[in-house]
Amino acid sequence: MERIKCTITYDGSGFAGFQVQPDHRTVQGSLEKALAKIHKGETIRIQASGRTDTGVHAVGQVIHFDTPLTIPERNWKQAVNTLLPDDVRVLYVEKVDAAFHARYSVKQKEYHYIVLNREDPDVFRRNYVLHFPKCLDIEAIQAACKHLEGTHDFTTFSSAKSSVKGSKIRTLFHASCRKKEDDIEFVFRGSGFLYNMVRIMVSALLDVGVGKRRPEEIPALLAAKERGQLGKTISPNGLYLWEVSYHEQEKEKHSGD
Amino acid sequence: MERIKCTITYDGSGFAGFQVQPDHRTVQGSLEKALAKIHKGETIRIQASGRTDTGVHAVGQVIHFDTPLTIPERNWKQAVNTLLPDDVRVLYVEKVDAAFHARYSVKQKEYHYIVLNREDPDVFRRNYVLHFPKCLDIEAIQAACKHLEGTHDFTTFSSAKSSVKGSKIRTLFHASCRKKEDDIEFVFRGSGFLYNMVRIMVSALLDVGVGKRRPEEIPALLAAKERGQLGKTISPNGLYLWEVSYHEQEKEKHSGD
Repeated sequence: MERIKCTITYDGSGFAGFQVQPDHRTVQGSLEKALAKIHKGETIRIQASGRTDTGVHAVGQVIHFDTPLTIPERNWKQAVNTLLPDDVRVLYVEKVDAAFHARYSVKQKEYHYIVLNREDPDVFRRNYVLHFPKCLDIEAIQAACKHLEGTHDFTTFSSAKSSVKGSKIRTLFHASCRKKEDDIEFVFRGSGFLYNMVRIMVSALLDVGVGKRRPEEIPALLAAKERGQLGKTISPNGLYLWEVSYHEQEKEKHSGD
Repeated sequence: MERIKCTITYDGSGFAGFQVQPDHRTVQGSLEKALAKIHKGETIRIQASGRTDTGVHAVGQVIHFDTPLTIPERNWKQAVNTLLPDDVRVLYVEKVDAAFHARYSVKQKEYHYIVLNREDPDVFRRNYVLHFPKCLDIEAIQAACKHLEGTHDFTTFSSAKSSVKGSKIRTLFHASCRKKEDDIEFVFRGSGFLYNMVRIMVSALLDVGVGKRRPEEIPALLAAKERGQLGKTISPNGLYLWEVSYHEQEKEKHSGD
């Protein structure tokens, strides 16, 4: 068996999220359907770095699967893409060691959230940005981002719907916001993210941007560890799983070959 | 009665073209439905600068309609947008003289066609550009564009499906192509365009770009006046009705008020 790692991109607009569900069009479902065709009907399960919700996009999601077939990397890409619908594409294919796992080997994930900050919405980007017409204080948002960076219990920034029992402590290596013409782009890099965490953070940061909260309130919000303290989870449309980075272990193993 | 001119934008992906058709979702149908609600059920017919086909987008389409209501321009915009689906938006509203006609007063139209010229398609722009992975000679395309400019019989560049009987002579004031990162953007400005003319011109220009034709062949193609000489009409996805300009007559009339 060979383990194949694929970096994929998808437009989340037309999918009921990543994870396979009966009677719903999902990213996983589309990929496994394509792989089944390549394997003459055999079911090939894929593992992803994590799920994404309905409407959430990916610029660089990572998956892996095991296959009995021996196909060159370049041909894998073409074979899968030919069978995929046009809103999901394989970007890179790499054969990896069996020690690699798309979910368990993750070192860091990067999410972006894009806000269109002008009066009129953009019909061409309605599924790809959050339209937010109110004036924003970017410097205040940047100051609030600095308070989010570091290792914290992010319970306040997790969804009340989450059923995960484990630790809510995560490390946010980087949180920032930059303005480019009418776009405000948020970037978050961390060891891991709780359910809806990016969307709840952006919602709180927009509250800071319009003056509803001060940047200095962030530490107290984190310390409160109360879900439901913050506003509603905002639209998935502006959210992108941008990049997933992995520990180098499998490459080191190969280096001696 | 007041005559209202609206500049509108729409994402053509979800519409069966501009013109109203029974049992199909159209731009005109959506606008007239919104206007009927504002007019308590009364049918309000709109006139556009011209139709656009299924999948063709508009950044600045212009329409007009007549109304017995007296509503300020700014409120018209909000009233209509509130009732429209989110893939069509009113950008500007202007009260105009009864001499203005969205179709008959047109002075110039501008179309853009966007080609994504790289190996991989972009899932987020699959409905908004033509993906064309082959290498293109931009200078050759620019030279061919120059041959298209001017007043010509554009029969060769019109659709065989067109049933229009009148003259096929049109004036192309401007035809150009520019590269910006992986995008090739074509711009055409003219007094009027035949059915499918922009898409057939771009198809011929891409033939020039890959070396299938030489720029110097364009004059002979124009002179041939034979429909069906050129390749297939390419995808509507990259095509945008960008701007419609009007004769100043109605403004001059007002200037003495």
